[in-house]
Amino acid sequence: MSKDSFGTLFRVTTYGESHGPGLGGIVQGCPPGVALTQDTIQQELDRRKPGQGVASTGRKEADRVELLSGVFEGRTTGTAIGFHIANQDQRSRDYSDIKDVYRPGHGDFTYEAKYGIRDYRGGGRSSGRETVSRVAAGAVAQEFLKTLGIRVLAYTVEMGGIPARLVDLENAQDSPFASPDPEAVPVWEELVHKVRSQGDSLGGIVEIRSDTLSAGLGEPVFDKLDARLAYALMGVGAVKGVEIGAGFAAARKRGSENNDQMGADGFSSNNAGGVLAGISSGQPLVVRAAVKPIPSISRTQKTMTIQGSETEINIGGRHDISAIPRIVPVLKAMVMLVLADMVLLQRAVKTADKR
Amino acid sequence: MSKDSFGTLFRVTTYGESHGPGLGGIVQGCPPGVALTQDTIQQELDRRKPGQGVASTGRKEADRVELLSGVFEGRTTGTAIGFHIANQDQRSRDYSDIKDVYRPGHGDFTYEAKYGIRDYRGGGRSSGRETVSRVAAGAVAQEFLKTLGIRVLAYTVEMGGIPARLVDLENAQDSPFASPDPEAVPVWEELVHKVRSQGDSLGGIVEIRSDTLSAGLGEPVFDKLDARLAYALMGVGAVKGVEIGAGFAAARKRGSENNDQMGADGFSSNNAGGVLAGISSGQPLVVRAAVKPIPSISRTQKTMTIQGSETEINIGGRHDISAIPRIVPVLKAMVMLVLADMVLLQRAVKTADKR
Amino acid sequence: MSKDSFGTLFRVTTYGESHGPGLGGIVQGCPPGVALTQDTIQQELDRRKPGQGVASTGRKEADRVELLSGVFEGRTTGTAIGFHIANQDQRSRDYSDIKDVYRPGHGDFTYEAKYGIRDYRGGGRSSGRETVSRVAAGAVAQEFLKTLGIRVLAYTVEMGGIPARLVDLENAQDSPFASPDPEAVPVWEELVHKVRSQGDSLGGIVEIRSDTLSAGLGEPVFDKLDARLAYALMGVGAVKGVEIGAGFAAARKRGSENNDQMGADGFSSNNAGGVLAGISSGQPLVVRAAVKPIPSISRTQKTMTIQGSETEINIGGRHDISAIPRIVPVLKAMVMLVLADMVLLQRAVKTADKR
Amino acid sequence: MSKDSFGTLFRVTTYGESHGPGLGGIVQGCPPGVALTQDTIQQELDRRKPGQGVASTGRKEADRVELLSGVFEGRTTGTAIGFHIANQDQRSRDYSDIKDVYRPGHGDFTYEAKYGIRDYRGGGRSSGRETVSRVAAGAVAQEFLKTLGIRVLAYTVEMGGIPARLVDLENAQDSPFASPDPEAVPVWEELVHKVRSQGDSLGGIVEIRSDTLSAGLGEPVFDKLDARLAYALMGVGAVKGVEIGAGFAAARKRGSENNDQMGADGFSSNNAGGVLAGISSGQPLVVRAAVKPIPSISRTQKTMTIQGSETEINIGGRHDISAIPRIVPVLKAMVMLVLADMVLLQRAVKTADKR
Repeated sequence: MSKDSFGTLFRVTTYGESHGPGLGGIVQGCPPGVALTQDTIQQELDRRKPGQGVASTGRKEADRVELLSGVFEGRTTGTAIGFHIANQDQRSRDYSDIKDVYRPGHGDFTYEAKYGIRDYRGGGRSSGRETVSRVAAGAVAQEFLKTLGIRVLAYTVEMGGIPARLVDLENAQDSPFASPDPEAVPVWEELVHKVRSQGDSLGGIVEIRSDTLSAGLGEPVFDKLDARLAYALMGVGAVKGVEIGAGFAAARKRGSENNDQMGADGFSSNNAGGVLAGISSGQPLVVRAAVKPIPSISRTQKTMTIQGSETEINIGGRHDISAIPRIVPVLKAMVMLVLADMVLLQRAVKTADKR
Repeated sequence: MSKDSFGTLFRVTTYGESHGPGLGGIVQGCPPGVALTQDTIQQELDRRKPGQGVASTGRKEADRVELLSGVFEGRTTGTAIGFHIANQDQRSRDYSDIKDVYRPGHGDFTYEAKYGIRDYRGGGRSSGRETVSRVAAGAVAQEFLKTLGIRVLAYTVEMGGIPARLVDLENAQDSPFASPDPEAVPVWEELVHKVRSQGDSLGGIVEIRSDTLSAGLGEPVFDKLDARLAYALMGVGAVKGVEIGAGFAAARKRGSENNDQMGADGFSSNNAGGVLAGISSGQPLVVRAAVKPIPSISRTQKTMTIQGSETEINIGGRHDISAIPRIVPVLKAMVMLVLADMVLLQRAVKTADKR
Repeated sequence: MSKDSFGTLFRVTTYGESHGPGLGGIVQGCPPGVALTQDTIQQELDRRKPGQGVASTGRKEADRVELLSGVFEGRTTGTAIGFHIANQDQRSRDYSDIKDVYRPGHGDFTYEAKYGIRDYRGGGRSSGRETVSRVAAGAVAQEFLKTLGIRVLAYTVEMGGIPARLVDLENAQDSPFASPDPEAVPVWEELVHKVRSQGDSLGGIVEIRSDTLSAGLGEPVFDKLDARLAYALMGVGAVKGVEIGAGFAAARKRGSENNDQMGADGFSSNNAGGVLAGISSGQPLVVRAAVKPIPSISRTQKTMTIQGSETEINIGGRHDISAIPRIVPVLKAMVMLVLADMVLLQRAVKTADKR
Repeated sequence: MSKDSFGTLFRVTTYGESHGPGLGGIVQGCPPGVALTQDTIQQELDRRKPGQGVASTGRKEADRVELLSGVFEGRTTGTAIGFHIANQDQRSRDYSDIKDVYRPGHGDFTYEAKYGIRDYRGGGRSSGRETVSRVAAGAVAQEFLKTLGIRVLAYTVEMGGIPARLVDLENAQDSPFASPDPEAVPVWEELVHKVRSQGDSLGGIVEIRSDTLSAGLGEPVFDKLDARLAYALMGVGAVKGVEIGAGFAAARKRGSENNDQMGADGFSSNNAGGVLAGISSGQPLVVRAAVKPIPSISRTQKTMTIQGSETEINIGGRHDISAIPRIVPVLKAMVMLVLADMVLLQRAVKTADKR
């Protein structure tokens, strides 16, 4: 759980840049005996793939994953699972326009401040392409969670300020914009077209949910389930806020409204979002992430050169209008990685009396 | 960075329950030579002390810290700093009323689900008293950060839905409700009295800010500065949401509005909240945490017994009306712990060419 | 597993110096429901207590442990276990003789080189007194391991070059010199008297063994069981070598001699010492640690002042002649801490098919 | 620092099996600006390559490393460095002879006990081929250490019980058997031929040394420099013992002999092996690892089938007679990984007064 590693027992470590040979990672801690194939991982990657939907006009990448270790005869062996996704569409183009200029809203300035050196080709390590490794690792977590009956859903609840109704969560992830609301789709589509014509971009809000968690996951006092989820989601580029259950609205409720009272059948509401005192309660886990608009826009923007003088920049080329829906499987992957880790950590706690 | 430990290099590990002998912790990684006394730590603890302000009617605790190691002749030695805060006001009362009942909004149910055993006296480890160790550790971080010229401010920006204006950030932490707005104080006071008379409780929103960070702090791709801050703040009991810069509002902006353009003098706005691509940009760091209303209310609530039957509960006794303002120094402490750690981590990065 | 923390899931973090208020630590990850009292921990501490046996003439310390958290009604709750051992016999003496001089064989020089500041009173953090926290934590591990039927023995196999026979391992830890061989005792006693009269000191070799481990413990490729044991034992002050099974002698054997062949009843020899490819085999675990002679001797030694000039030093006062037998419970504690951690880690691996 | 990850700040995580698509890893924490090419890494890999010297008759593997990320225009960028080494000579042979049988001295039995599933092709993850990733990562550490003037040497000091003299350490690593003694070479060669004709195998002792360390490296009380080195070396397959400085011989010395006294010019001896109280002293670092004989021998051995019945096994095919000299660059790599990490950790400690 530092830098390029995420998780304690179920843990992924990643590498790779936007325009290098490829990206990939190593998943540790996946228990042995879990059915796993390249195709299963590929399905999740395909949900994140560039060039999907009207909000995406990005580069073409097949994003084919290759499994390198840790699987034998179709099952995990308990050892490290290596995977690699080759970059294909690294157009050998001229970067002289962005080499000496910081793109607003990107990490160009801060990477240079931190490291004193910067791979300026497409953002290097700070590129959104980095999330391909998160999705691949999340797909491994998903197969493990399946063996326990745990499923995670993710969908868009708001785009450009326009909300969706929670109509169909099950099919949302393969719907346009990962929308749980068929009626929101044409409205968002129209918005996307309008914003594109303005050379601008859009943000939104994504909700991730699991109805199948048992109580007891989370490791207080610092590795609380909600703390780890916040860490996981806020660590995805473009996310600027995270909330659980009633979230920010809870700050405006009275205690008598916000408390989830209980009866013989369990809780009678879920303002907590499935987590009490940092531990899952068995109620549905419900978290949301606020996604900022894509910083690459075709409008002219003011910026600074690396020499410190003012200049203007027009970011042409292939850019999505919104991180939605491609960020949806990424956020889902992060939640699954947290849950897989928490399940393993809880095993150590609860079987105290038997070996 | 797991369970009771927080941080990678600058790291605190804590112990202690509400009604045991005391609480405390161990701070590792504080560089040698930092001036540190019990009094310095005590000052921060006093800001969190029970029984302060109109929103607090809690138990009396002196919360005297004792330094146990790691300081020699008034300066840190670079070795582990142990500290202990004895519990004093553990009224030897009868717990039979809550022993077999889960208090709504508390961790009673989930601790039992997780561990199969529960210290029911005042919440045990899940009590808000646990945060006393966070504040003590944060005070150590503060002394270290001071040697670098880094200061962190924290203040209440909203209470019970009523916002404060950002008038005076410097003196906010020692103002009533940690309010940065003198005019908000009487309004909030009136609200507290009203809510108390209704046997209810209040939440609010706290902002934490630092204007003195240099660019370069944060460890992508998983230990981004904002990810660590979200982890730190969401891990504090009662926090249900975290946002940075424009936060959730960013999800509703267009890219052209949300991007912080640059000129020769640097950034011309700060929607990013001081973090770009997970690394500090040198702009003011601005994060907010949503704090839920205190779950202990004197109104009658429905709940469940540990045997699974429905019952009612009236939580009498000593309870604050709001976690604000006592949570303010706790949240500030968590941010300082993150920053101290990030500063140490950055040292390893940036001095590559010299030993 | 860094600096003052040891272990991944079953983890101890310690603090404390020779002449500060006291020493202690925090044990995380001990599963709930384990019977634990101060007395149980005290028993192990008493085995390490100063002033025991003919080789010890050290200071008097009651070394009374106080449990601060994590235990409720005689059982662990699964939360952090804090403990503290107050220093009592910190004679308020004059340190001017060692304040400006590096004692040969001690950490005075290297602590100053590392931290630029040094608590010169009795070695500060580098004192052997630090191990009191290891023993207390090991005692917690021992109670947990007992619930699984795992026992660990430790005993002296050589002292000052004179070996013991492995006659009675069970009772060794409470015998003089922790000797497994009654006949070795008077021989070693005589040696101790002779060496003391010469103003000199002695080393020895300690073996730690467990006959009750199941196969499967150890986390390749880096956290192999033997790697962790080597880390654990070499990290104890005075240990200069660690070996497992045939150890250094294996380097001189042929493969046909060293391989442990198997039959229907299992292995027919144990040159491996119970670990194959970093994982316990179910055979007895057998490790040895080489303990250097105590560096504090009453003979005159040449050394350097902190100003860099040559000087002589006579270390008077209270010093043991040998770290044996007091180091024996320390080394046993470290092995138990490793085993407790490995048991918890293995739980995550092996229950893949069930929650 | 768990399972497949090694190190705290300078950290490598690895994957890969003997007969899968390949092996590789991710190096985190290498500071930016270090010159690094595939060729530099390849040089170290070539020292470990199969089929070298008279003791090796192993399979042919080119072991070509491919750099996947973290390097831009010939210099490290401070981000994760991915690398991959494809397996080439995975002869598609019949494994039915070892599929159901545990090879003596190998991890077949324990991997099955641990994971309940086993990649039986050439040992899978437990194969010595795993060390190729360690060498590649060590080569990155080496380039970083070079920028600080730190060099590490490794050489064979004993083979099959026959010692070498320490004549020429500088050129040892490219000499036959990595021998520092030209006269030992023909003697060892003769021994190898004899042992091969007997269908047997040989072990030995390797020493690793650095004369260029400054004082101050090591993180007490658990991450002492010697503890980390023991962990690093004992974690290499075939290593059964580790010692530092006088090592096991120190257990037989008197304190007056073993103490390294000091004068105005520093230490007058080096029994400590360059580490005092877990921190480097600035003297030469000297550690040794005992390497057991290769367990794959062509003699008939008794063993057990996975069904639990007794059987015999003849391990034919391509096997080295000794892990020496191929293990020498592996052990050197592990020491360099420890040193790189310790240098980074010390940076956080020593620059307390300045940012």
